[in-house]
Amino acid sequence: MTVLVFLDPSLPAGRIVDAAVPALLATDQGATRGDGVFESLLVVGGKIRKSQAHLDRLESSARAMDLRIPPQDLWRRAMATAVTEFRGNLAGTVGSASAPTGNAAGVGNGAGDDELVLKLIVTRGVEGGTTPTAWVQASEPPAAGRAQRETGVDVLLLDRGYDSSIAERAPWLLLGAKTLSYAVNMAALRYARAHGADDVIFTSGDGRVLEGPTSSVLLAHAEGEGPDRIRRLITPQLDSGILPGTSQGALFAAAKAAGWELGYGPVEPADLFDADAVWLISSVRLLAPVNRIDGREIGTAGVRRALTAELNELIARTQ
Amino acid sequence: MTVLVFLDPSLPAGRIVDAAVPALLATDQGATRGDGVFESLLVVGGKIRKSQAHLDRLESSARAMDLRIPPQDLWRRAMATAVTEFRGNLAGTVGSASAPTGNAAGVGNGAGDDELVLKLIVTRGVEGGTTPTAWVQASEPPAAGRAQRETGVDVLLLDRGYDSSIAERAPWLLLGAKTLSYAVNMAALRYARAHGADDVIFTSGDGRVLEGPTSSVLLAHAEGEGPDRIRRLITPQLDSGILPGTSQGALFAAAKAAGWELGYGPVEPADLFDADAVWLISSVRLLAPVNRIDGREIGTAGVRRALTAELNELIARTQ
Repeated sequence: MTVLVFLDPSLPAGRIVDAAVPALLATDQGATRGDGVFESLLVVGGKIRKSQAHLDRLESSARAMDLRIPPQDLWRRAMATAVTEFRGNLAGTVGSASAPTGNAAGVGNGAGDDELVLKLIVTRGVEGGTTPTAWVQASEPPAAGRAQRETGVDVLLLDRGYDSSIAERAPWLLLGAKTLSYAVNMAALRYARAHGADDVIFTSGDGRVLEGPTSSVLLAHAEGEGPDRIRRLITPQLDSGILPGTSQGALFAAAKAAGWELGYGPVEPADLFDADAVWLISSVRLLAPVNRIDGREIGTAGVRRALTAELNELIARTQ
Repeated sequence: MTVLVFLDPSLPAGRIVDAAVPALLATDQGATRGDGVFESLLVVGGKIRKSQAHLDRLESSARAMDLRIPPQDLWRRAMATAVTEFRGNLAGTVGSASAPTGNAAGVGNGAGDDELVLKLIVTRGVEGGTTPTAWVQASEPPAAGRAQRETGVDVLLLDRGYDSSIAERAPWLLLGAKTLSYAVNMAALRYARAHGADDVIFTSGDGRVLEGPTSSVLLAHAEGEGPDRIRRLITPQLDSGILPGTSQGALFAAAKAAGWELGYGPVEPADLFDADAVWLISSVRLLAPVNRIDGREIGTAGVRRALTAELNELIARTQ
């Protein structure tokens, strides 16, 4: 089931549109040029996670491409409409063939079963026009992603082509923006799957670890026992041309409060192989433990599982 | 005026769709991820230029992203329908306010006034589906582009971030494919316009000249006089991760037949500044002489004009 709510200044709660009926002009620059920005959010038990961080990043992405987008309050109201409509439709179909089935993979990660995904999308609208096209989509989370929270993923390191220092020198590359131009991200995922892996960690031309095509990279070290135990969580530094991860940000705040040490890259591939655990973290799939990178196991299954459980507890506490 | 013809296996001539009515599902991966490929073609006096080269490149782009697209004969029939419909509508509106006006800039470049642009677009369709969405759009050529054939353009050199050797090592970057993920190309053009220029020539991280965001780069040297005159036309080598230009290819064939020497890069920025003339060449705007790069004049106005006229004669002879 997919629910669509288009933003419309004349209808502050948004305009619900049948997802089976065409809603976009074929001349929309979102469709003809990938010219727009987006966000993906998780909704758990009817509560939208990190909505402020996502709305702020949507605005920041739009600013990077000189795109004016609707104000946050219109997004919030359309999101609320989409969540209400989706959950209302779902309640009407419980027990029917179209209802999502409970998924054991959701248990124990703090998210539970009652999940849906919101996508916020805004394009530059039609060529020559001045009105962006903006909508919210509510749909079920992909089952594969939920399963990977538990099973973990095998990852390939792939060169992203860019030098880690280029983002600030070349704003036209839109490296900190989450644009609709995702063809390379999808191609990298297809390449990984064609080569026996599940996901990708991009590296820079100068050998730095960057991010996944749809996720941020985390690594952890744990040393010692009991009260002297040191736990350190590290992510690549933001100025290397990566997207600021809203989930990484929320988890870092929670981990700090729980006594973890935090670090921001530079991270090199050798650091990943030396880590006790590595994860890909994103808003919808949440924390996916990395079992192997380029075929080499990261840490041990037991340590990965224990650290993942610890971080999932922290994620469950974040909003 | 815009004419849309959707490809539809059950209607071999294509399905004409009102461009003012939504025709795309909001869940189409063209709109949500820039996941598709496209081509832009020029039609002069009802005749489609270089249709075989464009259809071949559309297929090659699609192959690079594992995208199955409709066969060439369906594209050809939809293109013919779009041209006929557009010209028919135009004939019905001649003399009305919506008819395009004659453009003096078209005179003398071998193209004439009776021009229209075809865009071929194909996306991966909706998530989870197996049917691509494919359509042909016919519309008027942008007036600015036609004027630039005569007035020329000022250009900025901008770093594309990639090393010129990465294309073969990293097929997931889709460097030889013309994908719908054009946000960076459009951002580079906006950056140029915000900095007093009209267009962009991308350079590689290792200092090579690559291409424009929507064009190929050409440079020329002319030496001597009369029968001993040597004219040399150079373009960056294709394996530097650039799109193979259909117009560059056609012009090179015509120039060779007319006695020009041809060369394929590596080209460095210094080569551009040393040239007698530099052009951006593309299918719709055709040949746009470059007046200045980063504020420095290229050759002299007289030589640029003479060489441009010579090459325009050759373009007029190509199909």
